Amino acid sequence: MSAPDAGGLRAIQSKDNPLYKRLLRLRQDTAFIARERRKGNAAVVLEGVHLAQMWLAYVGQPEAVLFNQAQLRQNHELQDLCATLPQEICIVLDTDLAEALSMVGHGPGVFCLVAPPALELPERLAENALWLDRVQDPGNVGTLLRTAAAAGIRQAFLSRGCAFAWSPKALRAGQGAQFGMRIHEDCELSALRSRLDIPMVVTALEGAQSLYQAELPRACAWVFGNEGQGVSEQLLSQADLRLRIPQSDAVESLNVAASAAICLFEQRRRQLSA
Amino acid sequence: MSAPDAGGLRAIQSKDNPLYKRLLRLRQDTAFIARERRKGNAAVVLEGVHLAQMWLAYVGQPEAVLFNQAQLRQNHELQDLCATLPQEICIVLDTDLAEALSMVGHGPGVFCLVAPPALELPERLAENALWLDRVQDPGNVGTLLRTAAAAGIRQAFLSRGCAFAWSPKALRAGQGAQFGMRIHEDCELSALRSRLDIPMVVTALEGAQSLYQAELPRACAWVFGNEGQGVSEQLLSQADLRLRIPQSDAVESLNVAASAAICLFEQRRRQLSA
Repeated sequence: MSAPDAGGLRAIQSKDNPLYKRLLRLRQDTAFIARERRKGNAAVVLEGVHLAQMWLAYVGQPEAVLFNQAQLRQNHELQDLCATLPQEICIVLDTDLAEALSMVGHGPGVFCLVAPPALELPERLAENALWLDRVQDPGNVGTLLRTAAAAGIRQAFLSRGCAFAWSPKALRAGQGAQFGMRIHEDCELSALRSRLDIPMVVTALEGAQSLYQAELPRACAWVFGNEGQGVSEQLLSQADLRLRIPQSDAVESLNVAASAAICLFEQRRRQLSA
Repeated sequence: MSAPDAGGLRAIQSKDNPLYKRLLRLRQDTAFIARERRKGNAAVVLEGVHLAQMWLAYVGQPEAVLFNQAQLRQNHELQDLCATLPQEICIVLDTDLAEALSMVGHGPGVFCLVAPPALELPERLAENALWLDRVQDPGNVGTLLRTAAAAGIRQAFLSRGCAFAWSPKALRAGQGAQFGMRIHEDCELSALRSRLDIPMVVTALEGAQSLYQAELPRACAWVFGNEGQGVSEQLLSQADLRLRIPQSDAVESLNVAASAAICLFEQRRRQLSA
């Protein structure tokens, strides 16, 4: 299936190549992805130089790195990346096959096959963390992780019903935030409550203190909820602190990722000035 | 083409109906939309009860309101909406035609044909405002408008190269923020600079003061830039104040809409506590 190309690297030229077929299914076949995840084989395909470099910097070696043949010939950035990697994980991919694999479309240069680290739930939770309750849009999940990472948060707990944090759209929106964070998915958040050694904080419209007047804990579980429905009643009732962002009434509410940016950076502002 | 239905309302049952054909093109045919906008006919189709109610509350009467026939029979919210409107603008739309018009898919109930107000550029600019420089993603443009409206901003200036603020995706992300704001599109931002009576403020990574330490003007032109490239060199050089958000180095940067949320609400926080 794979034959060495001119540069001595393995090459894939057929869409029937088993590795290529697996990559294609990991990109497109949601039932296959769900099945693989249940088996603990949560492999993921990263697209683009930026995510490849972030993975190398934050996590380590990918299982395989596939270069678009035409792009590799022309693009120095790809050539430099290829030169830093062990030859045995580098594969040259026929240009048509690379384009069929791309979610972005215009000139995809490189794909990495990686396995997100498998994590065990900590016994006790005492570190500032992002908790997401049924956030459905993968772009929102990715942006929330990126914002949390930028605010210095390194741990996230996602409920069932959240978009997959490692889906192509969430990876694109996250811009590599996933790689530096410990992300626990499919969590039962209300059951995790009993493991918390720090307060649980929610944003709510009723019975809530102003974000700007409330005392904020140095570390807490920040819960943000579903785009339409917000945080579930059960989690609202478990919260130690309910906050509202003092917004104008020109719109009903803020987008969940905008809310989180405002809250997490208000906490960061106070920590930096303390 | 249109015949009265059982309830006495006009009905559209054919996909060849001229009004229906126009609506379909306003949803799907980007060349048609661009041509209409150049002619000053910037009509827009709003989908869903929420946007319909927001338009009625903030702007006024739509040109036409089209109800999905099957939904109108069952849904009390739609029946109430229909009862508050003049009969001559209400139209009952065959269910198959309504579904073909929908961008959302699951049970679209109502569409409004509306014309965003045509605005003249103000001679002088002295009011707190959102300036967007080539923000390409319509979801980002909509979220930025929603966040700005929530922060109390009522005026926006979008450069050429920004996504259309009234596109279906921007409307969905904006959640009606567009209706209460004065939005100027296709602006030459660097030329608008000379009309400013308030500072121009940009976020930048270099030569910038910390957002939390800088003195913030009570009103300014807040400039946020393209997703990949940020604010253009020309606008950067015209700025009165360059700010950076003190983020961790776990990710390279924040999403543009998250950056804006942090900046605009920091200004709001100081105004509320002043």
